Amino acid sequence: MREVAILGVGQVPVREHWDRSVRHLAADAGRAALLDAGVAQVDGIYVGNMTGGRLNHQRQLGAVVADALGMWGVEAVKMEAACGSAGSAMRQGIIAIASGEMEAVLVIGVEKMTENGFPQTTAALTTAADADYEIEQGVTFVGLNALIMRRYMYEYGYERRDFAPFALNAHANGAKNPNAMFRQPISMETYDNGRIVSDPISLFDASPIGDGAAALLLVPAEKAPRAVRVLGSAVATDTLAVHDREDPLSLKASELSVQRAYAQAGVGPADIDLFELHDAFSVMAALSLEACGFAERGEGVRLAQEGAILPDGRIPICSMGGLKARGHPVGATGLYQIAEATLQLQGRAGAAQIDGVDIAMTQNIGGSGATIVTHILQK
Amino acid sequence: MREVAILGVGQVPVREHWDRSVRHLAADAGRAALLDAGVAQVDGIYVGNMTGGRLNHQRQLGAVVADALGMWGVEAVKMEAACGSAGSAMRQGIIAIASGEMEAVLVIGVEKMTENGFPQTTAALTTAADADYEIEQGVTFVGLNALIMRRYMYEYGYERRDFAPFALNAHANGAKNPNAMFRQPISMETYDNGRIVSDPISLFDASPIGDGAAALLLVPAEKAPRAVRVLGSAVATDTLAVHDREDPLSLKASELSVQRAYAQAGVGPADIDLFELHDAFSVMAALSLEACGFAERGEGVRLAQEGAILPDGRIPICSMGGLKARGHPVGATGLYQIAEATLQLQGRAGAAQIDGVDIAMTQNIGGSGATIVTHILQK
Repeated sequence: MREVAILGVGQVPVREHWDRSVRHLAADAGRAALLDAGVAQVDGIYVGNMTGGRLNHQRQLGAVVADALGMWGVEAVKMEAACGSAGSAMRQGIIAIASGEMEAVLVIGVEKMTENGFPQTTAALTTAADADYEIEQGVTFVGLNALIMRRYMYEYGYERRDFAPFALNAHANGAKNPNAMFRQPISMETYDNGRIVSDPISLFDASPIGDGAAALLLVPAEKAPRAVRVLGSAVATDTLAVHDREDPLSLKASELSVQRAYAQAGVGPADIDLFELHDAFSVMAALSLEACGFAERGEGVRLAQEGAILPDGRIPICSMGGLKARGHPVGATGLYQIAEATLQLQGRAGAAQIDGVDIAMTQNIGGSGATIVTHILQK
Repeated sequence: MREVAILGVGQVPVREHWDRSVRHLAADAGRAALLDAGVAQVDGIYVGNMTGGRLNHQRQLGAVVADALGMWGVEAVKMEAACGSAGSAMRQGIIAIASGEMEAVLVIGVEKMTENGFPQTTAALTTAADADYEIEQGVTFVGLNALIMRRYMYEYGYERRDFAPFALNAHANGAKNPNAMFRQPISMETYDNGRIVSDPISLFDASPIGDGAAALLLVPAEKAPRAVRVLGSAVATDTLAVHDREDPLSLKASELSVQRAYAQAGVGPADIDLFELHDAFSVMAALSLEACGFAERGEGVRLAQEGAILPDGRIPICSMGGLKARGHPVGATGLYQIAEATLQLQGRAGAAQIDGVDIAMTQNIGGSGATIVTHILQK
């Protein structure tokens, strides 16, 4: 199979976009990626989206986006894997180019979540979990993650505020990213005063929903020798329900997908200069760091406390705000992560630029770890 | 790219399955396909589904199905293109095998539509159309198709009952298919007495919703020299809204996708022995026949009246009942079509068997023709 390169990047700032529908957000990001790449036409469009059918009353977003971009006729489809939707779209786009089936592919992640009230949005988000065996019990999606965080604290002897470094790092980095939803650093005092959403998760251990879209233009690497290359791309699954797992503190799908991606890329954790992980909740950031080999079991939080996750640390994470501060438009997030990693590799990350990023990794999570998508990129 | 073959077929009868959730239906069909193929493990699962997030409160069906099949860890994702979801999943499964990325892929289309009341189901189906510019006007999805049928009658001088041969053929064929929802032939009198759903569409010019799942097991053709081969696979899009088309009676995406598939297969309309088309509404069957080169513009209905679509006709369609009589579990339909075409090619279609089927074609439509997926198969 051919190597794949990222030739263009497009992003819409994560905001409450009252004047743009889901199609406009997707088309805005798509056009930006096309312009960035200097490409006018593609062979395929892969769209990642989670809640459009419910919150925007619009399905068939592949055709919707092709239509909005004026690319009538082009092959297009939507992928959905809850919050792992955009990472999954990237994976299919890569296969389409690598196979030789397509010469140029546009992948777009989009989500418009703020035009409905919170009860509807919360209900839409629960569909990421197990409808029959988790949600039926009355738990929300945040509630499930609160149970995981509580278990982590109990098992390893942490306090709630031990998780603060994740939020402080994310908000400090988001302040440097014009596309971030929250652009203010926070203090330890602010963190401590965070309103509890679902004990022990406070506002500062949970990412905010938002409207947004991110897009990438993919081509064969042989046609773009100086573009960022995809070294690894892998998806793995785990049980849908957390209670079905032997160990709720082990992200098996993260381990599996990262091992596959490491093997494809011929690299290991020591080679990764930047890790855009899925900090939908602080505890998930800790679990990802552990599953990917950056920390031993139970040491993910300690790694953050030691400063290793900071821009000048051993393994910087969430360099442009992460889900926590850039915002988490669920089905778009996986492509924001890859867009940001690409900009970092190219030295185009502006005020958020980190020095010496040669290899970057992204990890996008669907549900409570049921679908996990890992990508490894090199400049 | 490698040639792809269909090694196994699995179907769940289309019914109101009150005792099975969406995961059970998908797993039942998946297991049947694995058993049929004699394969125990796959590298990837591609699921087609449209309304699960809304009607079953369950998204992330890739992981859901991997979990239900006990295939923890395997790569999995869901594709959605409204009623073209399952055909789109097939297309991605084919690319995954053809590329060399995977050696065995399970594609499953599933839909569970009858556990909600009709208002909810109707609302869920409208998401196939343009939320901002069609549905906002108050039209339903059936209503849009009624406008197209009315225009067809006006433009070409047909009466409503001229469309009857489509329904009569579908019900006669469905009677021979144990997986069909409706298993009784209907008479012209029954057709004439059909209750109007949205004038001029009666119950007998509209397909019924239902619960169902169909699955196929794909492998490289080199590993299964006697299995049914995929000669062509193509997706094309058109404007989402019917009113944006230059000609509402021309299915541009059907023309484009069939031309691509014909070119890949090196065949033309004269070579097709069986055409499993998307008769969600009788008028769509007529438009597909015209777009694919079996009839001139406005002659699709005449072709049916001449008997060409019957099992012993020049171009048999809906050989196992079609959407009309087998039933239309929307996100599963595209794979029921391919499953049925495969059984016909293998001589395993039972009482519905048609003689001399060497090359079969399927066409799966999303929305009012915004996404159209064509597959050409050979025994």
